[in-house]
Amino acid sequence: MPQTVYIINGPNLNLLGTREPEKYGRASLADVEALCQDTAQRHGLAIEFRQSNHDGDLVDSIQEASAKAIGIIINAAAYTHTSIAILDALLAVKIPVIEVHITNINAREDFRQRSFVARAATGMICGFGIDGYALALTGLATMAKARKG
Amino acid sequence: MPQTVYIINGPNLNLLGTREPEKYGRASLADVEALCQDTAQRHGLAIEFRQSNHDGDLVDSIQEASAKAIGIIINAAAYTHTSIAILDALLAVKIPVIEVHITNINAREDFRQRSFVARAATGMICGFGIDGYALALTGLATMAKARKG
Amino acid sequence: MPQTVYIINGPNLNLLGTREPEKYGRASLADVEALCQDTAQRHGLAIEFRQSNHDGDLVDSIQEASAKAIGIIINAAAYTHTSIAILDALLAVKIPVIEVHITNINAREDFRQRSFVARAATGMICGFGIDGYALALTGLATMAKARKG
Amino acid sequence: MPQTVYIINGPNLNLLGTREPEKYGRASLADVEALCQDTAQRHGLAIEFRQSNHDGDLVDSIQEASAKAIGIIINAAAYTHTSIAILDALLAVKIPVIEVHITNINAREDFRQRSFVARAATGMICGFGIDGYALALTGLATMAKARKG
Amino acid sequence: MPQTVYIINGPNLNLLGTREPEKYGRASLADVEALCQDTAQRHGLAIEFRQSNHDGDLVDSIQEASAKAIGIIINAAAYTHTSIAILDALLAVKIPVIEVHITNINAREDFRQRSFVARAATGMICGFGIDGYALALTGLATMAKARKG
Amino acid sequence: MPQTVYIINGPNLNLLGTREPEKYGRASLADVEALCQDTAQRHGLAIEFRQSNHDGDLVDSIQEASAKAIGIIINAAAYTHTSIAILDALLAVKIPVIEVHITNINAREDFRQRSFVARAATGMICGFGIDGYALALTGLATMAKARKG
Amino acid sequence: MPQTVYIINGPNLNLLGTREPEKYGRASLADVEALCQDTAQRHGLAIEFRQSNHDGDLVDSIQEASAKAIGIIINAAAYTHTSIAILDALLAVKIPVIEVHITNINAREDFRQRSFVARAATGMICGFGIDGYALALTGLATMAKARKG
Amino acid sequence: MPQTVYIINGPNLNLLGTREPEKYGRASLADVEALCQDTAQRHGLAIEFRQSNHDGDLVDSIQEASAKAIGIIINAAAYTHTSIAILDALLAVKIPVIEVHITNINAREDFRQRSFVARAATGMICGFGIDGYALALTGLATMAKARKG
Amino acid sequence: MPQTVYIINGPNLNLLGTREPEKYGRASLADVEALCQDTAQRHGLAIEFRQSNHDGDLVDSIQEASAKAIGIIINAAAYTHTSIAILDALLAVKIPVIEVHITNINAREDFRQRSFVARAATGMICGFGIDGYALALTGLATMAKARKG
Amino acid sequence: MPQTVYIINGPNLNLLGTREPEKYGRASLADVEALCQDTAQRHGLAIEFRQSNHDGDLVDSIQEASAKAIGIIINAAAYTHTSIAILDALLAVKIPVIEVHITNINAREDFRQRSFVARAATGMICGFGIDGYALALTGLATMAKARKG
Amino acid sequence: MPQTVYIINGPNLNLLGTREPEKYGRASLADVEALCQDTAQRHGLAIEFRQSNHDGDLVDSIQEASAKAIGIIINAAAYTHTSIAILDALLAVKIPVIEVHITNINAREDFRQRSFVARAATGMICGFGIDGYALALTGLATMAKARKG
Amino acid sequence: MPQTVYIINGPNLNLLGTREPEKYGRASLADVEALCQDTAQRHGLAIEFRQSNHDGDLVDSIQEASAKAIGIIINAAAYTHTSIAILDALLAVKIPVIEVHITNINAREDFRQRSFVARAATGMICGFGIDGYALALTGLATMAKARKG
Repeated sequence: MPQTVYIINGPNLNLLGTREPEKYGRASLADVEALCQDTAQRHGLAIEFRQSNHDGDLVDSIQEASAKAIGIIINAAAYTHTSIAILDALLAVKIPVIEVHITNINAREDFRQRSFVARAATGMICGFGIDGYALALTGLATMAKARKG
Repeated sequence: MPQTVYIINGPNLNLLGTREPEKYGRASLADVEALCQDTAQRHGLAIEFRQSNHDGDLVDSIQEASAKAIGIIINAAAYTHTSIAILDALLAVKIPVIEVHITNINAREDFRQRSFVARAATGMICGFGIDGYALALTGLATMAKARKG
Repeated sequence: MPQTVYIINGPNLNLLGTREPEKYGRASLADVEALCQDTAQRHGLAIEFRQSNHDGDLVDSIQEASAKAIGIIINAAAYTHTSIAILDALLAVKIPVIEVHITNINAREDFRQRSFVARAATGMICGFGIDGYALALTGLATMAKARKG
Repeated sequence: MPQTVYIINGPNLNLLGTREPEKYGRASLADVEALCQDTAQRHGLAIEFRQSNHDGDLVDSIQEASAKAIGIIINAAAYTHTSIAILDALLAVKIPVIEVHITNINAREDFRQRSFVARAATGMICGFGIDGYALALTGLATMAKARKG
Repeated sequence: MPQTVYIINGPNLNLLGTREPEKYGRASLADVEALCQDTAQRHGLAIEFRQSNHDGDLVDSIQEASAKAIGIIINAAAYTHTSIAILDALLAVKIPVIEVHITNINAREDFRQRSFVARAATGMICGFGIDGYALALTGLATMAKARKG
Repeated sequence: MPQTVYIINGPNLNLLGTREPEKYGRASLADVEALCQDTAQRHGLAIEFRQSNHDGDLVDSIQEASAKAIGIIINAAAYTHTSIAILDALLAVKIPVIEVHITNINAREDFRQRSFVARAATGMICGFGIDGYALALTGLATMAKARKG
Repeated sequence: MPQTVYIINGPNLNLLGTREPEKYGRASLADVEALCQDTAQRHGLAIEFRQSNHDGDLVDSIQEASAKAIGIIINAAAYTHTSIAILDALLAVKIPVIEVHITNINAREDFRQRSFVARAATGMICGFGIDGYALALTGLATMAKARKG
Repeated sequence: MPQTVYIINGPNLNLLGTREPEKYGRASLADVEALCQDTAQRHGLAIEFRQSNHDGDLVDSIQEASAKAIGIIINAAAYTHTSIAILDALLAVKIPVIEVHITNINAREDFRQRSFVARAATGMICGFGIDGYALALTGLATMAKARKG
Repeated sequence: MPQTVYIINGPNLNLLGTREPEKYGRASLADVEALCQDTAQRHGLAIEFRQSNHDGDLVDSIQEASAKAIGIIINAAAYTHTSIAILDALLAVKIPVIEVHITNINAREDFRQRSFVARAATGMICGFGIDGYALALTGLATMAKARKG
Repeated sequence: MPQTVYIINGPNLNLLGTREPEKYGRASLADVEALCQDTAQRHGLAIEFRQSNHDGDLVDSIQEASAKAIGIIINAAAYTHTSIAILDALLAVKIPVIEVHITNINAREDFRQRSFVARAATGMICGFGIDGYALALTGLATMAKARKG
Repeated sequence: MPQTVYIINGPNLNLLGTREPEKYGRASLADVEALCQDTAQRHGLAIEFRQSNHDGDLVDSIQEASAKAIGIIINAAAYTHTSIAILDALLAVKIPVIEVHITNINAREDFRQRSFVARAATGMICGFGIDGYALALTGLATMAKARKG
Repeated sequence: MPQTVYIINGPNLNLLGTREPEKYGRASLADVEALCQDTAQRHGLAIEFRQSNHDGDLVDSIQEASAKAIGIIINAAAYTHTSIAILDALLAVKIPVIEVHITNINAREDFRQRSFVARAATGMICGFGIDGYALALTGLATMAKARKG
C-alpha cells in the first residue's frame, strides 16, 4: 500500500479559480487535487486532500496526519501569518512539512511576509502557481527516498 | 423579490445587551436584527442576518453572500483586528462591503485600531451604537440606487 | 427656531470636484452644502457650513460651535492626522462630534490612518463619498432624539 | 451541590504527553483532568473540563461558564497570544479568571510573551507543569472563601 | 523704561477656565495675564501678552519678540508637540526662552511627551497650573540679573 | 532539620498595607511573612525572609540562597523590570526560582510587562494578592517532592 | 506674455540672512527673489514670489498656482516635514513641482529627513544655498522645453 | 515649628561644581543646600537635604519624607531615567512631588528624555541651573498656601 | 540548440560541503552543478553556472543573463538580505527569476528573513538542500512550456 | 588646463536607457556622459566619467578623485542606500560632493529613502532625469567660483 | 611611587569561577586580581582592585579613582547595560577609561549589546576571558607612555 | 616555521593617516603593518597582511586564512556593519577571530554600533588606535598558548 502525504489547504482556497484570478490563477481547487493525485502516483505515493476555512480544522488535520502520513504539504493561506495554533500543531509532528503558496508572499503586503508555518517547516515553495504543489510532492518524495537510501 | 443584504456579526455579539453594557449599550442582537429588518424594508431590501463566534463561519458567510447578496454589512468584532482570513474572503467579493462597529474603535486600545476588514471595505461607520447598522443599510441603499441611476 | 449643527471642513476641500476626482468624486463643496441643507431640513435642523485651509480657523469654528450648536460634523481632511490643536478644541466641547471622510482613510497610506479627531469623536463615517455627510446628520439627529426621548 | 469551576483548554492540549514532552511533560490531558477532579474535591468544588482546537469553541465555553460557574481556569495555549475574541469573551464575564500555562511563557519566544488573556485575568500561574492547574484551583478556592468570609 | 518679556500662548488657551477645568483649572487667560503683569512688575519688567490659535501667528510673535524682548515665555499648547515652524522661529532667537505648561505633560498621553519647543528652550516649567507663568517670569528675571551681574 | 526556602522581597514592599492599598491590599509584609511561615511549616520547610530597597542587597541574598536553600521565591518588585544584575545572580543559581507578584503585572503599564526575573525563573505566580506567596511555596514543595520521588 | 512659475516659501524664511547664518547663509529673501527674477528672465519666464509663516497660506498659494502657473518651486521649510495639508494641495496640482531646501536636509536631524512635499514633487534640490532656487528654475525651464519639443 | 520639605538628590550630584561645569555650572551641592535653606526660610519652611549615589537610599528617603514632610523636591539625576523603584516609592506618597533638573533634559540625549519620576510628580522644573531648586520651593510653598486658603 | 538558464551563486557557496555541513549539507558546489546539468538535460535545457563572492559580479552575471537566457535561478546567499544592487539588476530583467536557498531562511536569524531578491523573483524555493536547484529548474521548465503552450 | 570633476556612477547605470525606461528614461549612459561633457565645457571644466557595478570600485574612484578633482558628482544608485564604505570614502574627501539621482528617491520605496551618501554630500539633486547631472555640474561650478571670488 | 590604575568590577563578578563556568571560565576573581597585579607590576603600575554588587558603590569607586588614579578599567557586568549613573560618573572623570568584558557581549542577548559605559570609555576589550584585564592594563600603559613621550 | 596570523583590513583603511586624522590618527597602514610585524615576531608568529576596498576580496582572504592560519585579526571597517557575506565567511572558519577597530565604535553613530563581524568573533578590541592591532596579536598568542598548554 502506498505511503500517504497530507495536503492541507486553508481559508478561501475553496474559491480558487474565481477568487482574484489575476493573482491566484484560473485553476480550481479540484484541479489542484487532480494535479497532486497525478504527481503522487508518479512517485508511488497516495494523498489525503483537505480544505477548511476553520483554523481549528487545520489543527485537527495536522494532528491526524502526524499518525498516518509520511509528510505534510500545507498551504495555510491567511492563517500562515496569524496562527500560532497551527505552528504548535506542526511543531508536535515528526514528519517533514512543506509550506506552499500560490503567489510569492515575500513580494506582497508586509503582513503576508511573516509566516508562523515557516518556523516548523522543512522547506517552502511559493510563486509557482498551483505547480508549486507538484514541486512540493516531488521534493517530499526525494527526501523520503534519501532517508531510506 | 427584494434584493438581499448580508449582515454578518462576529464573536461575542450574541451577548449584546448583557456584555459590558456601559460600552456596548443595552440593546440585544435581536434588537439589532429587528432594527435592520425595519430599515431594510424601508429601502425595499431583504436581509440575511448572521452571527458566529467562529472565524471560519464568518468566512463561509462572506463566501455565501458573494453569490446571493448585493452588499455586505460586517461587524467582525474581535476578528476585525486579527483575521486575514476574513480580509481575504472580502477581497474575493465584488459587492460593496460596509464595516460597522458599535463603539468608536479608533478611540480605544491600540490593538483595536488596526482593522483588516477596512482594507477590503468600501465604507465604515462606528461609534453610533446599534444605529450604525441602520446608517450602513441606508448608505448601501443609496450606493445601490446610484449604480442603477 | 431649529437647532444648529456645525459642519466644518478642512484644507483643500474647497477644491472638491476638481481635486483627484477618481478618489474624491465629482461633486463640489457647494453640492455637499446643498446635500447637508436638504438632509438637515428633513430632520428639522439648521446648519452652519464652514471651510478653511487654516488649522487655526478650524479651531476657531469648533470653539464657536461649542456655544451655538447641538453637534459638530467635521471633516478635518489633512489636519485629521496631524492637528492636536483641533483635538484639544474638540476635547473642550460637550456636544457630540461626528468625524466624516469622503474616502475610506483606513485603507489608504499609513500616515492617513492615524486620526487625532477620532480621540474626541463620538462616531465616524468614511468611504461613502459625500453621502457620508448626510448619514452623519441623520446619525446626529437620531442621537439628539434619543437624548430628549 | 458543589459550585463549579470551568477549566478550559486550547489548541493542541489534546496532544499533551506526546507533544514535545521535553517541554510539556509526559502527563496526558486525562491526567490533568484527574488532578483537577482531585483538587476540586478537596476544596468542595465541581469542575467542568473542556478542550478544543477551535477559537470559537473556547469563546462558547467562556460564555457558558459565565452563567454556570464561580470561576474560570483557562489555558488558551496558542490562542493566548492571538485571540482578541477570547479576551472579549472574558471581559464580558464577572467571575474570577485564572490564566494557566504549563511552561513559563515569559521565558520563551517573543510572540509567546504577549497575552491577550492576561488583560482580563485576575491571576496567572505558569511554569509549574500540570501542577499549575492544581495551584490555580487552590487559589480560586481561597478567593471564593475570602469573598464569602 | 522696563525691559519686556513676551508671553506667547498657543491654541485653545483662550478657553482657559472653561476648557476641561479638572485638568486646566478654573482661572481664565485674563487671570493669567493679570498674574503675569503683577509678577513682572515685582521684577521691574514689562510684558507683552499674546494668544492665537494659529501656528503662523505664534511664529510671527516669536519673530517680533526677537527684536523687542529680553526673553520669551511660551506655552505653545498643542503646537508644542507638532510645530517645527515654532521650533525654527525659536532657534533664530538669541534671548532666553522658557517653555511653560499648565499640566505636567510628561505624565500625559504619549503624543504630548514630545516637545519641539524644548529643543530651543533654556528651561521648562510644567504642572504648577497658572503659577508656572509666575515661576517662569521669576526664573527669567534671575537669569537676566545674573547676566548683568 | 527542615530544608530552607529563601523568600526575597524588593523595593517598597516594606510599605505593604499602606502603599496604594486598592492595588496591593491591606496586609502588611509581616502578614506575608506569617503566612509564609505557616505554609512552609505545613510542607515541612523553613523559610528565610528578606526585604531590601537596594538592588545590590537582593543580589547578595540570591547569592547566599544559592548555597543554603533548596529554592527561591522572589518578588523583585520594581527591579523585576530593570535589573539585569538580579537576572545574572539568578542565572548563577542551580535551585528552582519562583517569581511572585501581588498584582497581575501583565495587565498593567507596558514597562511592568517586561520581566528580567522571568528569564531565570522556573515558574511565575501573579495576581493572587499575598496568597501568591503561599501558592508559590506549595508549588516549590511539590517540585521538591517530585525530584526526590 | 511670459509663462509664470510660482515660488512659494514657508515659515521663517522671511528671516533669511539673519537666522542662523552659519547654516542658512547671509543672503536675504529679497536676494533670493532678485536671483529668481534674474534667472527666470534668462529663461523667458515670469515669477510670482510668496512667503508665509502660515500653513494655510501656503495651501492657498499652491491652489492659486494650480490655475495660473506652469510650475511650482516650493521651499516649505518646517512645514515640509509636518504638513499633509500642503501635500494634499500639491497632489491636486497637475504642473511640475520642484522642492528646494537651502541646506542638505538629509544630513540634518531625523525629523528633518521626512518630507511630505517629496511625495508630490517631480524633483528636489537641496544643499546649494540660495543657488538651489536658480538651479530649480533652470531645471523647470528645461522640463518645459522638453514637453513642448 | 516650620513644616519640612525633603530635597532629595541622586547620583553624582555630590560632584556638582566640578563635574562637567560647562553643563552643570560651577556651584557646589553645598551652594544648592544654602540656596534652598535661604528660600525655604523666606517661605517659612524647613528643609531636609539629602544626596546619595544609591538607588535604594533614594527610595528610603522618599519613604521617610512620606511621613515627615509636606512636599518632596527630587533631582533623581541618572536614576530619573531608569528607576521604577523610585517611581513606586513616589506613587506611595500623598504629598506633592516636584521634579527638578539643572539642565533641560528634554534637549539632551534620547535616553535622558524618558522620566519615570514624571509619572508621579505634580510638577517639573528644568534648565534653570541651581535656581530651579529655589523656584521649586517657591512653587511648593504656593501650592501649600492654596491648600490651606 | 537548447535554451539556457543562468544559475547564479553568491558568496561562500564555493565552500559548499565544508562550510557548516550540519546546516548546508555535504554536497559540494560541483555536485550542485552536476545535479543542475542532469536536471536541465532532462528538460532539454542548457545551463550557465556561476559563483562569485563579489556583489558586483553577481550584478554582471544577471545583466548578461538578461540577454542570453530564458530564466535565472539565483542563490544570492548573504547578498540576498543586503543587496539592492542585485535587486535592481533583477528588476531590469524580463525573464522569470527563481530564488533558491539551501536552508529554510524563514526559520533562521531575523536578518536572514528579509530578501531583496524576493521583490523581483517570480518564485522561491528553500529548505530542500541542493535538491532545491533541481526543483527550481523543473519549475522554470514548466513555466516555459506554459508560455509556449 | 581645466579643473576636473569626477562623475561616478553606481550599479546598473550601465543599463540606462533599456532598464525600466518608464522610470529611468530612454537616454543611455553615453548620452549622460555627452551631456556632462557639454555642460562641463560651458563652465570651463573637464570631467572624468566612471561607472561600476562594484562597491569597492566606487570607493577607489572616490579616493582617486580626492587627489585629482575639484568636486565629485556621484549617483551611487543602489549603493546609496547600503554602502557605509562609500560614505567613509566621501567623508575622507575635502572637495564638494553632489549626490544625483535620476528619479525622486524620496517618493519611492522606503528602503530607497535612506541615503548614506547624503551624510557626506554638500548638496543633492534628484528627479530631473539625466538633466540632474547638468544641474549638478552647474551648481558645482557656481560653488567653485564663489570660493575663488 | 608607582601610578595607580583602578580596576572596578560589577555585580556577580564575586562569583567568578563558579558562575556559569562554561561562559565565564573557571578562574576566580582572586585569580583576576593576581593577574592584574602581575601585569601592572610589569608596566611599573600599582592597582586598586574593587568589586561590588551595588550600583552606587561603583559610582563611589569611580569618583574616588577620578582623584587618585591615572586610568580606570571597568567591568560593570550587568550594570553596563542599565546604569546611567555609572555613565555619568565616568563622564565626570578626565582619565582614560577602558571597558572590559570576559565574554563577547556583542554576540549575546540583545539587552547585553547596549553599553552605557561605552559612551564614556576610551576603549573596549571583550571576549578574551580574564586575559582581557591584562590586555587592558597593557593598553592603558601604552597610552600613558604616549602621553608622556 | 612560525605559525601565521591573517590581518585583514577593509575599505578606506588604505587612507589611514590622511583620512580624518583627528578620528583615526596619523599613523599609516604601513605603520600598522610594521607594528604587527614587530609584535608577531615577539610572539614567534608570522603575519599575512591584507587590505581591500572590496567586500568580496575580504571574503576571499578569510576563506584563504581558514586553511593557512591559526587566527584572524579583522578590521572590516565599514563592512563591519553591513556585510553578512563576511559574517558567513567567518562562520565557516574554525580558528579564532579577533575584531579590531581603531576608534570606539560603540560611542559613534547608531549605524556603526551594529557589528555582523561580532557574531562570529571570539573577541573584540576597539578604541586603542593602531595599538589595538598589537593587543589583538598578543591576545591571540595567549589563546594559542593556552590551547597547547
